[in-house]
Amino acid sequence: MAAGLLVVGTGLLGTSVGLALRGDTDVLLHDRDPVAVATAAARGAGRSWDGVEPADHVLLATPPAVVAEELVRLQRLGVGRTWSHVSSVQAPVQAAAQAAGAELAALCGTHPMAGKESSGAQAASADLFRGRPWALCPSAHTGPDALAAVRSLAERCGGVPLELPAQEHDEAVALASHLPQVTASALAAVLLARSAGQQVRLAGPGLQDTSRIAASAPQLWVEVLSANAAAVGPLVRELAGELDRAATALEQLDRGAVEDLLVRGNAGRALVAVKRGGHDRDFAVVGVSVPDRPGQIAGVLLAAADAGVNVEDVRVDHLPGRPSGVVELLVAADTREDARAALAAAGWAVLP
Amino acid sequence: MAAGLLVVGTGLLGTSVGLALRGDTDVLLHDRDPVAVATAAARGAGRSWDGVEPADHVLLATPPAVVAEELVRLQRLGVGRTWSHVSSVQAPVQAAAQAAGAELAALCGTHPMAGKESSGAQAASADLFRGRPWALCPSAHTGPDALAAVRSLAERCGGVPLELPAQEHDEAVALASHLPQVTASALAAVLLARSAGQQVRLAGPGLQDTSRIAASAPQLWVEVLSANAAAVGPLVRELAGELDRAATALEQLDRGAVEDLLVRGNAGRALVAVKRGGHDRDFAVVGVSVPDRPGQIAGVLLAAADAGVNVEDVRVDHLPGRPSGVVELLVAADTREDARAALAAAGWAVLP
Repeated sequence: MAAGLLVVGTGLLGTSVGLALRGDTDVLLHDRDPVAVATAAARGAGRSWDGVEPADHVLLATPPAVVAEELVRLQRLGVGRTWSHVSSVQAPVQAAAQAAGAELAALCGTHPMAGKESSGAQAASADLFRGRPWALCPSAHTGPDALAAVRSLAERCGGVPLELPAQEHDEAVALASHLPQVTASALAAVLLARSAGQQVRLAGPGLQDTSRIAASAPQLWVEVLSANAAAVGPLVRELAGELDRAATALEQLDRGAVEDLLVRGNAGRALVAVKRGGHDRDFAVVGVSVPDRPGQIAGVLLAAADAGVNVEDVRVDHLPGRPSGVVELLVAADTREDARAALAAAGWAVLP
Repeated sequence: MAAGLLVVGTGLLGTSVGLALRGDTDVLLHDRDPVAVATAAARGAGRSWDGVEPADHVLLATPPAVVAEELVRLQRLGVGRTWSHVSSVQAPVQAAAQAAGAELAALCGTHPMAGKESSGAQAASADLFRGRPWALCPSAHTGPDALAAVRSLAERCGGVPLELPAQEHDEAVALASHLPQVTASALAAVLLARSAGQQVRLAGPGLQDTSRIAASAPQLWVEVLSANAAAVGPLVRELAGELDRAATALEQLDRGAVEDLLVRGNAGRALVAVKRGGHDRDFAVVGVSVPDRPGQIAGVLLAAADAGVNVEDVRVDHLPGRPSGVVELLVAADTREDARAALAAAGWAVLP
């Protein structure tokens, strides 16, 4: 009887899949690096593959550049019934698999929208996919068995399956992930070029938020952006044009054009904000001034919880060299007054 | 004997100053709108001005467009010894005051870096300025008494005084506040133009952060950006050029140029991140998977507090249609392992 799953590539994603399926599926582990397999096995992600034993499904979680070659090699060994490969940009990998002569009916590309700064089997986690969107990208050749196998895999790992073609996937992540990365990096690069030190002392939460992902690892992002350059490039060009027109509007003091940009920005942001909560309730902010010491944020949130208020998001604004800060709670608008009253009753300094 | 302070313009800022000085200073309140004065007085910000009684210091917290005229009118009445005006862009207001014939030696421009979405005396708060940078912008004409009076005012309100010339102030906020606003608005505008709905379902925390301030009020920001257009315009143009070059690098698959942008972005972000904590400690992230119901975030933070860990920032990542989410705590790097151990011991699902 075949094992349930063979994971090829026991890095962060492959090992996390094994950990997520622990107790559910008999998982085989393979990697070019035997130490990586041993680490994954020791953490409980599955058992080391002997190079022969077959599996119902084979998941390739190797670097995108070697997927096609490894896929064809393993398909010729006949060790799997259905196949999938993980990559953050789908179309190039699917094209490479076709060019390499892979059996396409049994194959479905896939991309769990999960990751973290650290990498490797050591950083893997059974929770990595829990609640995260998990893209399924069948090609025109993908058969129903392969698609069903990947959907089942995503669900058993706790992910939220979202089916869309490779091209659409790549365009979606270009807009929702790769463009924001380039934007934040470029903003921070201008900050670097123009700041003489004094300016950032006047920085507020706006700059903090807008530049946050500029801290991402360059080596990783060079790969991602290069692989998806065809989709990202035109979006970056469009943003550059939008900003060029904004600069002209400012130079000409064209208030109508400036206001038009701000209004379109409101509407664009609403697309994301609505998505965030997964519903279209209205939200409101409750601000609390707190001393900067352990337990203060927790105390604020506990008081809100005591009142039955669900806090959707939290923001903390610290201030340089000062012993206090502001905690902002995002709550459903219809619970705002309850939250404010409960926090004030518990002795917190609720801001109006 | 003169009162300590006359506040002219009892909106959010003026009324908040009165509330912050309650019990410390005898505050007089004036506004063109008698209802605004009555509201501020009823909230305890001070007492209604009779139009004659003098004060040691007069703070003009009126809309920037009427500052110069009101200042000259009141100076001719001789009701104050020293004077200040609040505005988010300093140089144009200072120029208007000079052109209107104001007595400049007794005057110092100022800008508390505080604000909120809501406005008016009703929204005012004694805490509004606590721990916030408060810019003091003396002109070449400002005498030592006027500067000292504004510095004292900032300190008594709980603000952190930061002295810099008007031109430097305006360039600093252009970079640290106005450019990020235009950037977020333009990014969200591209999102609006290009999204067909599906894409934002793949949005992660990166897009959330980068677009957050695109939700800001257009009417307010048209005023701010127009008043500081001379400083903001060139920065927006520079960012547009940076993005144009990034688009070209992507089109030409110039990996070196893409990596260079990402590396400069890292360095630019580090300027802000270091500022944030007010010191240069290293920080680390601790992630915890939680069910989406009241009290969960508080529980996580309490467990961290029990271990004596100070949480510098909190991020909550909700997921559409799912009953769980991820709470990320930013902690000093040297406390990360303690925080993780304490949370795990308290039964929380700590992510690796």
